[in-house]
Amino acid sequence: MLIKPVKWSGNRLLLLDQTQLPEKVVWKRMESVSRLCEGIRALRVRGAPAIGVAAAYGVALGAACARGRSLTSKIRAARLSIPQLAATRPTARNLFWALERMREALERAAVSETTSAGFLNKLLAEARSIQEEDLRASVDMARHGARLFKSGDVILTHCNTGGLATAGGGTALGVVAEAWKLRKGIRVYADESRPLLQGSRLTAWELMRAGIPVTLICDSTAASLMRAGVVTRVILGADRIAANGDVANKVGTYSVAVNAKYHGIPFYVAAPWSTVDLSLNGGDEIQIEERGEEEVTRFGLRRTAPKGVKVYNPAFDITPNALVSAIITDRGVVERPYRTNLKRLHRKFREPGTFLEGS
Amino acid sequence: MLIKPVKWSGNRLLLLDQTQLPEKVVWKRMESVSRLCEGIRALRVRGAPAIGVAAAYGVALGAACARGRSLTSKIRAARLSIPQLAATRPTARNLFWALERMREALERAAVSETTSAGFLNKLLAEARSIQEEDLRASVDMARHGARLFKSGDVILTHCNTGGLATAGGGTALGVVAEAWKLRKGIRVYADESRPLLQGSRLTAWELMRAGIPVTLICDSTAASLMRAGVVTRVILGADRIAANGDVANKVGTYSVAVNAKYHGIPFYVAAPWSTVDLSLNGGDEIQIEERGEEEVTRFGLRRTAPKGVKVYNPAFDITPNALVSAIITDRGVVERPYRTNLKRLHRKFREPGTFLEGS
Repeated sequence: MLIKPVKWSGNRLLLLDQTQLPEKVVWKRMESVSRLCEGIRALRVRGAPAIGVAAAYGVALGAACARGRSLTSKIRAARLSIPQLAATRPTARNLFWALERMREALERAAVSETTSAGFLNKLLAEARSIQEEDLRASVDMARHGARLFKSGDVILTHCNTGGLATAGGGTALGVVAEAWKLRKGIRVYADESRPLLQGSRLTAWELMRAGIPVTLICDSTAASLMRAGVVTRVILGADRIAANGDVANKVGTYSVAVNAKYHGIPFYVAAPWSTVDLSLNGGDEIQIEERGEEEVTRFGLRRTAPKGVKVYNPAFDITPNALVSAIITDRGVVERPYRTNLKRLHRKFREPGTFLEGS
Repeated sequence: MLIKPVKWSGNRLLLLDQTQLPEKVVWKRMESVSRLCEGIRALRVRGAPAIGVAAAYGVALGAACARGRSLTSKIRAARLSIPQLAATRPTARNLFWALERMREALERAAVSETTSAGFLNKLLAEARSIQEEDLRASVDMARHGARLFKSGDVILTHCNTGGLATAGGGTALGVVAEAWKLRKGIRVYADESRPLLQGSRLTAWELMRAGIPVTLICDSTAASLMRAGVVTRVILGADRIAANGDVANKVGTYSVAVNAKYHGIPFYVAAPWSTVDLSLNGGDEIQIEERGEEEVTRFGLRRTAPKGVKVYNPAFDITPNALVSAIITDRGVVERPYRTNLKRLHRKFREPGTFLEGS
């Protein structure tokens, strides 16, 4: 399952361009923070944890690309990169979490370092920490989550939550891969995930590479598979989780959750702790990104809807905690009551400087 | 709303090629029954009532295209066309209903007529009757159904049920158009309806032509609009309705129905009586067509899923009667208990020769 979609190399950031998968595997070199911001907006890198990792390196990229060579100009450029990167996409918690970590590292380094090289190295070290922590989080989520699966489970998933969506280990798909490794004989149905088809383009690709049996379906086919008793469990990711356990995730997640509830099928969410946002009381406080209508009205060069048609294209939706059977995090599996249990895990793992609440 | 997608002209059948909408309005001339069968399979004509009308004319087309000019060869060709047309698509009731009507007309004419021209005219007269009855059915459904809508209703629909799906007047979309004409100030959200996007390509196009406010959404966005309290009613069509009120319709209908139930939103099905199949006890006896994987893995020339991926692509699903608030037919609005009430309407309107049960 291990695919690292973000790499630092030659003082620049490389992104595996996910808009070109599965047809072409193309790495794009980000020559500036502006280019990286375009890459995040255009979903060349996507998936909440992966966006966080890319943005963390983005701050280092700001310093690396500074016009002047002086420490002062590097510091200024790195500082300027933070609001630029924060403005790319509003919903994924991990973006803001990673930028807050980088801001702290930046300000520490601005005081402690006396050379440009030393300053850049500190930023890179923090970005690498974020990347490595996310890789470890995937391992821990996989270990905790796999226990929830039984032999012969038929799993429905939505959107992409594999290595591509993270530093490399996956969230929900990492759990699925672990269950597969434990020889549980699972199979997966992957929702194609309109409008941008991350399910067919990325999830099917990742599962096939890993040798895990996968069947691709249209999003609206999932319900009839549940009615037929085929699907036994649902697992998917999250872009932000509020203090009460409400989940923001790829549009369509809520429909899957309602259908899972109606059919009595367990519905699991897997996300690293960096996706949890205890500063938000409930899901309705999460800002939902609306994206361009061309994602719905066009396909490549072909127009598939009448000119001038009005479109509503939210990229995410909110699933209330009542529909969530369990939240699988790197810190453990969280069950109801979510507010109490999320707070407990937060306190248990609190390490000053590692996680800043309410940032 | 009136768009007639099927026309008899110059001793041949013309189809408005719905695969090319909304980009191009192209009429295709069917030069043989085989070409028409290809046209039905490829969805150049689609929508249960429209398929019925096209197939009815298809039997006449069989006679018109017969190799020999003799009455005997015309009769033979018309007879042969029936199994050919019946083999095109399995789910829509109207196809078999129309072919059964044509078979009876054919056998009557084979006895009564003494010339090729007389025989062909009898077939054409029956096909025209089927077409005109379906147009009248749309008017009656619209009248019965519009009463269920209140001022300011925000309506969700799925797939295409407008003029294009029928002889010309629409089923569910005909009801919507009538509610609009009655100045109820309604608005419509149209599910795009993957995989073939009949919602964005056809429904949005028809509603915009009629000046009815429409917003296009991805199928999986509908649930969050229900949660937000935006959608107040759902109306959509049917390909076959069993004696107990279970409904086969475009894949995704069931998911919409579960979500409507969960959110307490009325869920209406509109269909002419020719869609009702009293010979089937329940929906699970309805044959669900599975279509090619390329509908899900490709878009135009672009491949959107990995090569060799397994796909499950049913064109329809079954919505159990428990989720259906009312069935709007040309014979009136049917409510629970559906088995009793459908049977009552069947008896009330029984006209020998007009409707053959269990064919």
